[in-house]
Amino acid sequence: MEIEMENVDLQQQNRQPPSSSSSSSEEEKETGGFGSYLLGMSSTIASPDEGYLSKNIKEMKLNWMIGFLFVVSFIGLFSIVALRKTMIIDFKLTYPSGNATAHLINSFHTLRGAKIALKQVKALWVSFSISFFWSFFQWFFTGGDNCGFSSFPTFGLKAYANRFYFDFSAVYVGVGMISPYMVNISLLLGSIISWGFMWPLIGKRKGDWYHASLSDSSMRGLQGYKVFISIAMILGDGLYQFCLVVYKSAQAYKIQASHQSSSSVLPVNANGSPPALGAPKISYDDEIRTDTFLKDQIPTKFAIAGYVVLALISTVVLPTIIFKQLKWYYVLLTYIVAPVLAFCNSYGAGLTDWSLASSYGKLGIFVFGAWAGLANGGVIAGLAACGVMMSIVSTASDLMQDFKTGYMTRASPKAMFVSQVVGTAFGCIIGPLVFWVFFKAFPLGKTGSSYHAPYAALYRGIALLGIEGLSCLPKHCVQLCILFFFLPIALNGARDYLKHKNYNAHKYLPNVMSMAIPFYLGPYFAIDMCLGSLILYVWERRNKAQADMLASALASGMICGDGIWSLPASVLSLAGVKAPMCMKFVPGSG
Amino acid sequence: MEIEMENVDLQQQNRQPPSSSSSSSEEEKETGGFGSYLLGMSSTIASPDEGYLSKNIKEMKLNWMIGFLFVVSFIGLFSIVALRKTMIIDFKLTYPSGNATAHLINSFHTLRGAKIALKQVKALWVSFSISFFWSFFQWFFTGGDNCGFSSFPTFGLKAYANRFYFDFSAVYVGVGMISPYMVNISLLLGSIISWGFMWPLIGKRKGDWYHASLSDSSMRGLQGYKVFISIAMILGDGLYQFCLVVYKSAQAYKIQASHQSSSSVLPVNANGSPPALGAPKISYDDEIRTDTFLKDQIPTKFAIAGYVVLALISTVVLPTIIFKQLKWYYVLLTYIVAPVLAFCNSYGAGLTDWSLASSYGKLGIFVFGAWAGLANGGVIAGLAACGVMMSIVSTASDLMQDFKTGYMTRASPKAMFVSQVVGTAFGCIIGPLVFWVFFKAFPLGKTGSSYHAPYAALYRGIALLGIEGLSCLPKHCVQLCILFFFLPIALNGARDYLKHKNYNAHKYLPNVMSMAIPFYLGPYFAIDMCLGSLILYVWERRNKAQADMLASALASGMICGDGIWSLPASVLSLAGVKAPMCMKFVPGSG
Repeated sequence: MEIEMENVDLQQQNRQPPSSSSSSSEEEKETGGFGSYLLGMSSTIASPDEGYLSKNIKEMKLNWMIGFLFVVSFIGLFSIVALRKTMIIDFKLTYPSGNATAHLINSFHTLRGAKIALKQVKALWVSFSISFFWSFFQWFFTGGDNCGFSSFPTFGLKAYANRFYFDFSAVYVGVGMISPYMVNISLLLGSIISWGFMWPLIGKRKGDWYHASLSDSSMRGLQGYKVFISIAMILGDGLYQFCLVVYKSAQAYKIQASHQSSSSVLPVNANGSPPALGAPKISYDDEIRTDTFLKDQIPTKFAIAGYVVLALISTVVLPTIIFKQLKWYYVLLTYIVAPVLAFCNSYGAGLTDWSLASSYGKLGIFVFGAWAGLANGGVIAGLAACGVMMSIVSTASDLMQDFKTGYMTRASPKAMFVSQVVGTAFGCIIGPLVFWVFFKAFPLGKTGSSYHAPYAALYRGIALLGIEGLSCLPKHCVQLCILFFFLPIALNGARDYLKHKNYNAHKYLPNVMSMAIPFYLGPYFAIDMCLGSLILYVWERRNKAQADMLASALASGMICGDGIWSLPASVLSLAGVKAPMCMKFVPGSG
Repeated sequence: MEIEMENVDLQQQNRQPPSSSSSSSEEEKETGGFGSYLLGMSSTIASPDEGYLSKNIKEMKLNWMIGFLFVVSFIGLFSIVALRKTMIIDFKLTYPSGNATAHLINSFHTLRGAKIALKQVKALWVSFSISFFWSFFQWFFTGGDNCGFSSFPTFGLKAYANRFYFDFSAVYVGVGMISPYMVNISLLLGSIISWGFMWPLIGKRKGDWYHASLSDSSMRGLQGYKVFISIAMILGDGLYQFCLVVYKSAQAYKIQASHQSSSSVLPVNANGSPPALGAPKISYDDEIRTDTFLKDQIPTKFAIAGYVVLALISTVVLPTIIFKQLKWYYVLLTYIVAPVLAFCNSYGAGLTDWSLASSYGKLGIFVFGAWAGLANGGVIAGLAACGVMMSIVSTASDLMQDFKTGYMTRASPKAMFVSQVVGTAFGCIIGPLVFWVFFKAFPLGKTGSSYHAPYAALYRGIALLGIEGLSCLPKHCVQLCILFFFLPIALNGARDYLKHKNYNAHKYLPNVMSMAIPFYLGPYFAIDMCLGSLILYVWERRNKAQADMLASALASGMICGDGIWSLPASVLSLAGVKAPMCMKFVPGSG
């Protein structure tokens, strides 16, 4: 199970934004942080003319890296485990990759004679093969920078520069087929608002709102708006949902307590606030799945206790032993807000399959780097806080993705959780060891070498910027962030009010979380997903019964086929095999 | 009807061979010859250091061009009209473009309430729209030399250099769906034998079999083998089929005569020799079509008389009034062999949709140019003979294509023939007039101008070469031609023997005419067509009834949609609108 998951994730993280900004893309390729924030702390990356250099450097050492990972990696698992019922059963979030993986696993266990199931398995494997070979085929044309189908300016070069293009990715077409229509429409709407209007309009203010000499990828410039406005929206929406869940749970708990019920499960209200996304009705399969999912419980008390204990250990260990630059109250504060952020990221991933861990990390850099200040080792404090933040939010979304798979495959949540803990422990040791071998054998991070670690330099750059705090952000960025933080709250409030009054209009309000994701990433995957929706729509109109039976299996095959291709692709890449051709797009010579 | 036909044809002629040789491609873009053999006669194209220049130049003049076209254009119509029953009913040749046009026309006349017909019409228009917009989409990426999907090295750059690639053309995928499996398999087989083995092997003999300094597109080099070996195969196969038809017709005539029957129709035997291509069984529709097709006859005697009269006029007028360099016996000889060549070309076009008129034209250049010799104006004689030859064979295949459309739409053959005559007469006047306007307004054919007429130079080059006769061809070319002339005769003989003995094996022998076409053109369209076969095969396996009902309509939509796109494409091109992007393929920078 983990293999498929990892591959799908890997694939997802390998997706590069288009040429216009790929050289400074801030989507990192692994969440361990070895190539980004950890290496960014070292003197290899630091430039000698930074101030207070001695306080702002932490050399790579095997022992503290393992220690750091052990301290921060497990807590993400505990941060969100109590909300799994809310996310998966009440909200009916799709977690498309998790869903696809589950279909793949289930396809190995189909009973002979189950006619429908066999048809689904066949559809899955056919689309799996096509998707795999399609990715394989695409690979041949990627020999060079910005080559291949993933930089296909489907709607012209100008649209491409604003990331409006179809990138021929089977994954996101499949994801789009699994996601509810409203999610995909919201994604497109968000894309059009942000990349269609806001960024080009802000771009015109270059020289006024921010310095004209800045590249579009600088956090002081356009990129600053993208990162912080999207995270503001996500936080606004997430916070609203989180508070609602907590409020309803508390109410339900009160009622339960007054009825003397003694369940140890956090009694999240089943009539909570699942966004009206047109999720399918409960089938017989789903009933059984829900039973299994709820039977083998991880007690909420255990989850909360685990979180508190780990947070306390972290609060003590991190500032005293590993990073002297961190204050204990930074760490404590991080762990107080972390569950909300973990919820936001899990919720977003459940809707759109994207985890925006790096954005949360950047938020950490800005908040804690500025708080500490350069003189007190703000760079290291920021990068460390970034690591803590990213670790929690990405673990949380991965875990929930896996819970979805577990739900679909009727795996025991307890067993899954234990496996995750064991796996994380292995990862905390193996990861740093592998990195260490490379670090000693190759000139990692040295400029000009083939291992120049651009992300490490990028993260250090952001950290150096972050210590200046909000003042370094471009003009009106903070005001826009505040606006876009309250926008989803207003929209959600309106939706819930309409729903409460039984007006049907609430179904037609867009989903804010889905709108926010392309604000940062760009419209290209939203276009893929809308194509998936379109395919599903046409299919449903032509043959509803067949579409209901096969669409999800077909989509899963598309997602997994492309995902599995990343395995041979990585092997080819490690072996230094370059693609033989480059498909390039240049302006016409007319 | 003509509009669709013309567009499909235009599209077909617009298809460029791949980059490796496109600069010297010898597929001309129009059959009037204004940009090729006619302009090639003028002093604009001739270089001053050619010998006997005065005898080998014929300046462009409006009067002789109109006269020439009038004298040579009609005879093609008469050359083949007597064989229409043989080609369309007995041989059941598909003529994919003609077939597609007929489907399009029929779709306008579908009775309301005819359920199946309505489904077919819907399938046609859906695929028509997709094909049209697909071509439209492709256009955007063609801004520059060798840009766009038509130079997509699907199987790698090395395969592409040997024209093994899929060019994303909806036309030939559609044609492949209409053509019998055996035709498509034969095309692929021919492609592999020629471009997979023969040409690369002969290419290795460069410096031995032909001069190492020659480009691959020189008739003295590799191109010589391609042109003449393919034409030898086509002639071998065509001659065999032609003789068989004549022999069987004569036999049937004898029997009929002894039964005192007085039909004026050339009594081609319905049990003739239709190649065993798995053509569908006669349906009710086909019965009615056959009735209509046979009812409104053009008397064979009239056809033969018309041919003889026109040939005689031509024999007198061409050498005495227009081209003094032609001897009357050259012209007479041309008209004696022309019906066989016209039959060959029509037969090939019926199977594969390709008309190889330019190859027959080259044959004319070589035979008559060499016969006349440079001192007696061999260049002009060759080019004029080329014009006569091309005019006959291309008219013949177009006419038969139209008869197929007429057969499918139940049009009267007589009315069609009359329309063709009227249309040809208009063409003979309008064509030269339009050319004349351009010729006077722009520096047509001047090197360095944007109207440099590469085909005119190319044809003159071939004519200069042709006067040397066979001796200018590369080593072993003549021997190979002889071998490949007799190969189809042997293969056809074997097939007919097996058939006569009722062995089933005859069904598995490839179709020589189909094998020969890619010898010259390359495998790319064979790959398109095989994909069409594959789609049809999978469809038939999944839902035979649906495939039988819709495949042909769907294929027609694909062919016509792409064909119609050539109309706006031409308008864009005339208006000087260049595509905004260029999709390029370069070797990987690994």
